Amino acid sequence: MRFSVNRDRFVHDVQNVAKAVSSRTTIPILTGIKIVANHEGLTLTGSDSDVSIEVFIPKEEDDKEIVEIQEKGSIVLQARFFAEIVKKLPGDEIELIVQDQFATTIRSGSSVFNLNGLDPEEYPRLPQLEEDLLFRLPQDMLKNMIRQTVFAVSTQETRPVLTGVNLETEEGELICTATDSHRLAMRKATIEKNDEALSFSNVVIPGKSLNELSKIVDDSNELMDVVVTENQILFKLKNLLFFSRLLEGKYPVTKSMIPTQSKTSLKLKTKPFLQTLERALLLSREGKNNVINLKTLDSGNIEITSVSPEVGKVTENIETTMQGEEMRISFNGKNVIDALKVIDSDEVNISFTGAMSPFVIRPIEHDHYLHLFSPVRTY
Amino acid sequence: MRFSVNRDRFVHDVQNVAKAVSSRTTIPILTGIKIVANHEGLTLTGSDSDVSIEVFIPKEEDDKEIVEIQEKGSIVLQARFFAEIVKKLPGDEIELIVQDQFATTIRSGSSVFNLNGLDPEEYPRLPQLEEDLLFRLPQDMLKNMIRQTVFAVSTQETRPVLTGVNLETEEGELICTATDSHRLAMRKATIEKNDEALSFSNVVIPGKSLNELSKIVDDSNELMDVVVTENQILFKLKNLLFFSRLLEGKYPVTKSMIPTQSKTSLKLKTKPFLQTLERALLLSREGKNNVINLKTLDSGNIEITSVSPEVGKVTENIETTMQGEEMRISFNGKNVIDALKVIDSDEVNISFTGAMSPFVIRPIEHDHYLHLFSPVRTY
Repeated sequence: MRFSVNRDRFVHDVQNVAKAVSSRTTIPILTGIKIVANHEGLTLTGSDSDVSIEVFIPKEEDDKEIVEIQEKGSIVLQARFFAEIVKKLPGDEIELIVQDQFATTIRSGSSVFNLNGLDPEEYPRLPQLEEDLLFRLPQDMLKNMIRQTVFAVSTQETRPVLTGVNLETEEGELICTATDSHRLAMRKATIEKNDEALSFSNVVIPGKSLNELSKIVDDSNELMDVVVTENQILFKLKNLLFFSRLLEGKYPVTKSMIPTQSKTSLKLKTKPFLQTLERALLLSREGKNNVINLKTLDSGNIEITSVSPEVGKVTENIETTMQGEEMRISFNGKNVIDALKVIDSDEVNISFTGAMSPFVIRPIEHDHYLHLFSPVRTY
Repeated sequence: MRFSVNRDRFVHDVQNVAKAVSSRTTIPILTGIKIVANHEGLTLTGSDSDVSIEVFIPKEEDDKEIVEIQEKGSIVLQARFFAEIVKKLPGDEIELIVQDQFATTIRSGSSVFNLNGLDPEEYPRLPQLEEDLLFRLPQDMLKNMIRQTVFAVSTQETRPVLTGVNLETEEGELICTATDSHRLAMRKATIEKNDEALSFSNVVIPGKSLNELSKIVDDSNELMDVVVTENQILFKLKNLLFFSRLLEGKYPVTKSMIPTQSKTSLKLKTKPFLQTLERALLLSREGKNNVINLKTLDSGNIEITSVSPEVGKVTENIETTMQGEEMRISFNGKNVIDALKVIDSDEVNISFTGAMSPFVIRPIEHDHYLHLFSPVRTY
């Protein structure tokens, strides 16, 4: 194998592929990045067997030459070194030559690296997915959906299925749900479908995969294809394929958890409410339980308090528009803060159904998403 | 005690004082910040007994009121919470009231914090220094001197005196030296003195103190006073006093270590040389010894190589202007990189006296500083 490639493009794509590579893998060949050169260009692959990323670098793009292939072939190079090395190379071009025994030479400017490569035949093949279940959505929407749900997944392995975000279709919309059983984030989106009858449920993507995907997806509104199979999901970006394993197990039915009625309803400005809770959390964090108390006042406003026996107490009044009964409730302040941070709406509505029942926060401006919280018992 | 203070100014100064406070102190009162209010303004103090910082906030500055004192007094408040709380307060003003039993109320905007204070009488007094040994230098020069020496101090407690930077006067100049016995950084500076006969030696400031001081000192060329006593040093900035304990023990005599002759001398461009070493370090770091090899070539250039048996090898040629004998030497690449990063000169000169003798790197443009390195034996 022998090729020359534009340095900046190569560095960018090697970094993307390297995101899938874990140094803690038990399969030695997966510590490497696979590089394949053929007539059309270069293909780079990285994988930790949960997530696999494949990037294609075409020979030409927009009439500019990116890769010149002198000899076809393939090699696997240690991802950790290779990604660091290409980033630091001095020239505008990188030349890569593979000789006998996978001995690899990388030249750029005044620099010559001789690296010990690994046998590309040992590298596992990526899954070939049947593209029956396919939908399409803008990249920036996907990025937002990830941001607005993934923080709520469980970090505990006691119920592995809760460490993922659940995807399902309902009445033609895509619904993403994440919950750690104390809080729930739900986000809806309109998607484009080839087949109007497209429908699926219990497609649970590991939160970790979505965090990686989010770093790769653009803020553009360019459409991307998503292919769903029984145990894999594939996101297709321009010249990049992102595969993730799906989590096994039955995702809980969450729709029935969301209260449809409310006894008390508050309308609040998002940012001041968030800042008040952040101040209250300074003390409640100390008790390690993050408990913040909310009480409605006769004036229609609310009082937020939190206490740390050692440090002290904080009290704050906030203006609200209130409807319904008076209410006293305690909740995990950090969970509510996490949710308020991803709500892109100047005002929110909070609906309570009782001091011991879950409550819901929704943006005022639209109904694309909601956040559900269990209260905390304080006595 | 009762006062109101401008929030931004108070936050800034509380953060500065909090830099001296360690959560790992064994003296409980030192986890707090002491606040004293009198006719002139507020005084804030933080200390971990090695470093103490005292900030004064005057009632007025530039005809603007900063503090309004309603009642004199003093209190000690937990630094960790207090610094976080004031940073997050919503109003432009902060009101602080101390009542019985050190119960402290902080009000700002809609926020009311009730904190448990500590007895200010328990807080240790700062040392009163005799100002016999006093010199003056610009703040930005001090900042540079710290940056160019402190990285070379020892991180090992086997010879505690080497964890500090040594200050001494010589022929009216100030000399700062740091060494971990494998490398040495030396920096000279001209200082202003009240007393022409001012002279001192073996003033060893802990590296940790200097790193904290560096975060507080401005990039301005405003002059600051420095007071040296037997076991303390005091840096006097506008409205801020920074005290540090000095290290005990005899600092080694380093002047005689610096070779005055040279067998081989190279003139090199600093940045490309640094980048070449950074690439070579990618491999030599893997062997955990950081060894990089340098060899002069017949062309007058040099060849830089490093090897990791597992990963591979890197070779790079660099243009130099060479004088003297041919040379092969191996050194700790990370140490040389650390030094090149703080050299503010486009070109450097390297002087070798032999493959087994220390070598010196100096900026071409001036002789304010030099860096000395022991070679590494590779056989």
